[in-house]
Amino acid sequence: MEIKEYLKKQAEYINGKIREYIPEGIPEKLFDAMAYSLTAGGKRLRPVLILESAKAVGFEKIEDIVDIAVASEFIHTYSLIHDDLPAMDDDELRRGKPTCHIVYGEAIAILAGDGLQSYAFELISSNKKVPPDKLVRVINLLAHGTGIYGMVGGQAADILHEKENAFDDIQFIHTHKTAKFIQSCCQIGGVLGNGAQEEIEALGRYGLYIGLAFQIQDDILDEIGDEKKLGKKTKKDREKNKLTYPAVYGLEKSRQMAREYVENAVEQIKILKSPDVLINIARYIIDREV
Amino acid sequence: MEIKEYLKKQAEYINGKIREYIPEGIPEKLFDAMAYSLTAGGKRLRPVLILESAKAVGFEKIEDIVDIAVASEFIHTYSLIHDDLPAMDDDELRRGKPTCHIVYGEAIAILAGDGLQSYAFELISSNKKVPPDKLVRVINLLAHGTGIYGMVGGQAADILHEKENAFDDIQFIHTHKTAKFIQSCCQIGGVLGNGAQEEIEALGRYGLYIGLAFQIQDDILDEIGDEKKLGKKTKKDREKNKLTYPAVYGLEKSRQMAREYVENAVEQIKILKSPDVLINIARYIIDREV
Repeated sequence: MEIKEYLKKQAEYINGKIREYIPEGIPEKLFDAMAYSLTAGGKRLRPVLILESAKAVGFEKIEDIVDIAVASEFIHTYSLIHDDLPAMDDDELRRGKPTCHIVYGEAIAILAGDGLQSYAFELISSNKKVPPDKLVRVINLLAHGTGIYGMVGGQAADILHEKENAFDDIQFIHTHKTAKFIQSCCQIGGVLGNGAQEEIEALGRYGLYIGLAFQIQDDILDEIGDEKKLGKKTKKDREKNKLTYPAVYGLEKSRQMAREYVENAVEQIKILKSPDVLINIARYIIDREV
Repeated sequence: MEIKEYLKKQAEYINGKIREYIPEGIPEKLFDAMAYSLTAGGKRLRPVLILESAKAVGFEKIEDIVDIAVASEFIHTYSLIHDDLPAMDDDELRRGKPTCHIVYGEAIAILAGDGLQSYAFELISSNKKVPPDKLVRVINLLAHGTGIYGMVGGQAADILHEKENAFDDIQFIHTHKTAKFIQSCCQIGGVLGNGAQEEIEALGRYGLYIGLAFQIQDDILDEIGDEKKLGKKTKKDREKNKLTYPAVYGLEKSRQMAREYVENAVEQIKILKSPDVLINIARYIIDREV
């Protein structure tokens, strides 16, 4: 099976699991808002990377850890809901559908995001199959990669542009906003898969590099992608005066940097037991048109 | 020492510890915003209850668990920052100081709240003194009490008023918005203090009841409190058409209900080794003028 098809199948598997783990309760509108954003589609890259990283170090009991993979998508979804808010990126559409605050109002969108974050940690800490010491490590990696030293810090930098030049700025933003979360997913997979410390560290470097390549490719697709295939308007970043790789380095240099990150990522994980799927994912990240 | 003085001393101890654990990093403005709200004062009731609950079951190594107590205040602070946002309660002042979004802007206030939540879980999962199985339980209790089945759910209910009548509505709101978080703090203290299951459950009931009494007293003070002592305007809830106990039940009945909750709370914890401080805290909650 080609990697594109394989990833599609994996995303469908994750979609089914997300539906299983969607929380139910009252107030109805809060739970509806969370479910709305959780089922809005997407590549499900983060949960897939958790599971594939675990498999790459030889782990097979995927059903024991899939709730943790799902939790990573809860965090990703919270970040999208908050990113779309009027005070942030002010987006009314995501993947062709009205954003959470357009449908449910700003207050409920803020709370749906807050609640998805806490529920991710509730879900992970409810897992009874993984030993507690590993769960604590997983929670630490996830909180770190998605918090003030990771995703939240990167999002703040994207708003503030505190750095002295665009090269430092874009590197800080992409590393923190995107790559550190993806890095933590690969490390989490390594921990859950009972990988050796050396393997977990290799997965961390792999995750950081593919995270950067992923964000560069996102920037490139925003610049030159096919609007129909992407299901969204292109050149949005430029309209919003967002710092992107093509804007800072030009298209050709951006493509080259993404390729270098991918090859570097591939290099890191050759020590793993079964690195093939991760290697294909890395290469696919810069080939994708969506 | 009188309980009022004792609580003041404990709040000062917690304030010192908060300063120790305030995260540092870049982007500067994000970290400044978090520090600003973390050091804006307050009773520090939640961390104090974690520590006092641990002591009540016979625990003495407070320094080993104080980071977890501090983390609860990080969560409380995130909830205040988000509650104050224009899309939520739209408050420009808190404890006489401009709210986070007034000083740092809405985007950074949203991210400071998000980041305080994730950093709370990062802090707890970084503790090396408490055994991992207990840390997982603590994280689960905290995420549950402050998430969609607790504080976040209550805040959503406070905005939505989905219930059929005001009696059900106010009970749901106060139980979820305030009492469940306070309940989880008391349970967390019981877990960290190596309490027996029976003791942890007693602390949970105690926490739920004092949480309700605390919120009723807050409502009463908003209605008849001394603006100078409180450091804020009273009758704000009424202006904002918030559902409060005095609005639903009248002042006298509200006072009586708060007293009953407190006596019920006291009854629960008589089985503990050293319940005296917790008993005094319960009684003080409805005597307080601030």
